[in-house]
Amino acid sequence: MTFELTKEYLDRIQTAIEAGDDTTLRVEMEELYPADISGILYELDTDHAHYLLNLLDHAVGAEIISNLDPAVRVDLLKTFTSEELAPFINQMESDDAVDVLNEQPIQVREEVIALLEDREQARFILDLLHYDEDVAGGLMQKELIKINVNLTVNACIEEIRDQAENVENVYAVYVVDDVGKLLGLVSLKKIVLARKTARIADIYDDDIVYVETYRPAAEVAEVMQKYDLDAVPVVNVQKRLLGRITIDDIVDLITEQAEEDIQVISGLSGEVEEDDTIWARSKVQLPWLVAGAVGSLLAATVINGFQSELGKIAALAAFIPIIGSTGGNVGIQTSSLILQSLSDTTGLNATLGQRLLRTLLVAVINGLVVGLIAGTYTFLIGEPRLFFVVAMSLLAVVLLASFMGTVTPLLLNRIGINPAVASGPFITTANDLIGIGVYFLIADLLLAEL
Amino acid sequence: MTFELTKEYLDRIQTAIEAGDDTTLRVEMEELYPADISGILYELDTDHAHYLLNLLDHAVGAEIISNLDPAVRVDLLKTFTSEELAPFINQMESDDAVDVLNEQPIQVREEVIALLEDREQARFILDLLHYDEDVAGGLMQKELIKINVNLTVNACIEEIRDQAENVENVYAVYVVDDVGKLLGLVSLKKIVLARKTARIADIYDDDIVYVETYRPAAEVAEVMQKYDLDAVPVVNVQKRLLGRITIDDIVDLITEQAEEDIQVISGLSGEVEEDDTIWARSKVQLPWLVAGAVGSLLAATVINGFQSELGKIAALAAFIPIIGSTGGNVGIQTSSLILQSLSDTTGLNATLGQRLLRTLLVAVINGLVVGLIAGTYTFLIGEPRLFFVVAMSLLAVVLLASFMGTVTPLLLNRIGINPAVASGPFITTANDLIGIGVYFLIADLLLAEL
Repeated sequence: MTFELTKEYLDRIQTAIEAGDDTTLRVEMEELYPADISGILYELDTDHAHYLLNLLDHAVGAEIISNLDPAVRVDLLKTFTSEELAPFINQMESDDAVDVLNEQPIQVREEVIALLEDREQARFILDLLHYDEDVAGGLMQKELIKINVNLTVNACIEEIRDQAENVENVYAVYVVDDVGKLLGLVSLKKIVLARKTARIADIYDDDIVYVETYRPAAEVAEVMQKYDLDAVPVVNVQKRLLGRITIDDIVDLITEQAEEDIQVISGLSGEVEEDDTIWARSKVQLPWLVAGAVGSLLAATVINGFQSELGKIAALAAFIPIIGSTGGNVGIQTSSLILQSLSDTTGLNATLGQRLLRTLLVAVINGLVVGLIAGTYTFLIGEPRLFFVVAMSLLAVVLLASFMGTVTPLLLNRIGINPAVASGPFITTANDLIGIGVYFLIADLLLAEL
Repeated sequence: MTFELTKEYLDRIQTAIEAGDDTTLRVEMEELYPADISGILYELDTDHAHYLLNLLDHAVGAEIISNLDPAVRVDLLKTFTSEELAPFINQMESDDAVDVLNEQPIQVREEVIALLEDREQARFILDLLHYDEDVAGGLMQKELIKINVNLTVNACIEEIRDQAENVENVYAVYVVDDVGKLLGLVSLKKIVLARKTARIADIYDDDIVYVETYRPAAEVAEVMQKYDLDAVPVVNVQKRLLGRITIDDIVDLITEQAEEDIQVISGLSGEVEEDDTIWARSKVQLPWLVAGAVGSLLAATVINGFQSELGKIAALAAFIPIIGSTGGNVGIQTSSLILQSLSDTTGLNATLGQRLLRTLLVAVINGLVVGLIAGTYTFLIGEPRLFFVVAMSLLAVVLLASFMGTVTPLLLNRIGINPAVASGPFITTANDLIGIGVYFLIADLLLAEL
């Protein structure tokens, strides 16, 4: 049922663009959903994409531009003049228009706003430009249906008719008082079923969840998810209705947040697609590889300091990998659990003390198990004198890594850094380094012969 | 604006439950949204939660039970008799009812279905029990408004009135022909604005996105996200309309999927909360710690095999951490990029050959950079004869880890295992092991004196 983009189809489109065969292109594009045309634009080079986009109906083009990957969009829109861009912006929902304009140089932004035919749209955009993009005010759209509480259902239907073109998904009509303060809502279903002469005051629902403009985006996502909302109204401190945030924007936000977390945990510094240029990929991979290398070379310096011990008991070197990787693995596991509990706000939150106690108890069990396994191995390789050194080092490493894995994400979260960083190579490298130091120290203490 | 659960509030509720003060409890709960009552239930012990839930209005209780964390729900519902459970199931949407019943023993499931007052609900549930829970059929709910294409808007409004109680969010009315085949839809907005006597045939939109019952859940999520849908109709192979999937279920699905990916990448075997019991946490952490330990002990065996080399050049041991961690880091980065591109289906997919070529080119750059950094370090510690050994080993390790990081997730995906596994400790350990083998082999080959 959904469109599948093939190499053959793409070739046909490219040939038509090169031949300037606008009729074929228009006919082909008319059969597709905007989301499918986006898929084609991703595969075309920028000039071809520009050509194709300019052929489309502005409303369709507006929807496509709104949903393009921002990196691709910035490149593509560079080839557009302000005069070419304005009619598309004119057709967007205000929140999307602001997102696109925020990516443009200030001059383009101002030219486009000046060129907008729909002056209400221009006003909406100017209003929204004030807000930071990761708070409710930056996510909201100005398009919504609102009605004074003293009017009737009939007046409400007229309002919907007037706004029909601007508001794509209505969901509900917001009810306000004479000064624009949010009182409640009436669902579209209720409007369909109500008598035309019924007064809004008698049928509206005053039990309404709303957010203030300054609420962080993550909190908005959580509220909408928790209360299963399709849209949430946004108000200012006086509770005046300013806009609304719809669920599709939240779905995008949740997906982006999850992608960003996984990217940070995987040690990628910045967004990149697998099929980006070689250089772009190298640029996001190298920072952590280099940082990790430097960390490991610090560990190398520690090991070098114990050269004479290694010279006497070469088998000590054999346990360097298990010390390093166990510390890393425990660190990732623990910080990931903390990460998860930070994003889960149902119920009461544990205090730092409770968290540490529980984590350290788990660490004792895990450290003893791993320590015993590695300890047994010392017998297998005929170095039983290393039993206590290895087992005790592993217990210490697991305890330390659990402590770091608990404290680091909480600390990062407190100072406003994405705590997922603590699950990545940073903590792995730190634990690697600490673990090896602990290991050789314990060896030095326990083995009298060194 | 949203409710904040405090220790004091919780204490008050607990005291009221113990005192059997139903009036206070009912008054307090009436002020809260169902999602907030869930937060309280999470903090109460099972018997208290049972007591509180049984006091609630069945519709409110149904919504709460639908949205509870499944692990908590299973425990809680064990304390309910079939007679107590049935009135709640009676009030749920059919998809939620099936999810809850699927967690119950067969006997309870059958007893509850037999006890349902709403016989249509019973029929819906029996229909849905056939489907696997991770395909469209398992996600859909039977509650929707459908209307024959030959009827009028007025008949449509009557249909909505009849179904109003069952269908919480209407979004749109689905249009079917005489045999129930899906033809299109009419949005609620259009119904509000249409003349009452207009024929559905003249106003419905036949350009509709739908999914078949057998489509995997991930594909449904993708379609809804791509086309920004609030609800998607589900049809059988004859295109007969069977149900619909609403966006709130998809939001939950996306969140769960992201959590599962992060959990797998972090090496946690199974779902666990930070505040679960010590033993539960240890149980999800230990499998990977033990597997990682075994992998590292294999690496230890390799290192032990080169004891005489280590005896001659003790500095060789110093580079074990950088070899291991670089391999691990590159493996995670590469597989994470592949993971991301597997879940992104806009545009054309690269072939395995293209992917490998690009990945290996990136690996050459990264390997050279890290190799040169570590190579420089050999001069700093006065072991310049190790320059080529270390630099070449790191290049080889980065190339191998990139190859593994590309092929493993693709392979896992092909055989139906969550490819996120390839970003976790599994690939780290494998790369650790391979890297150390390569390092000592190269050392053996290049250093004539060994």
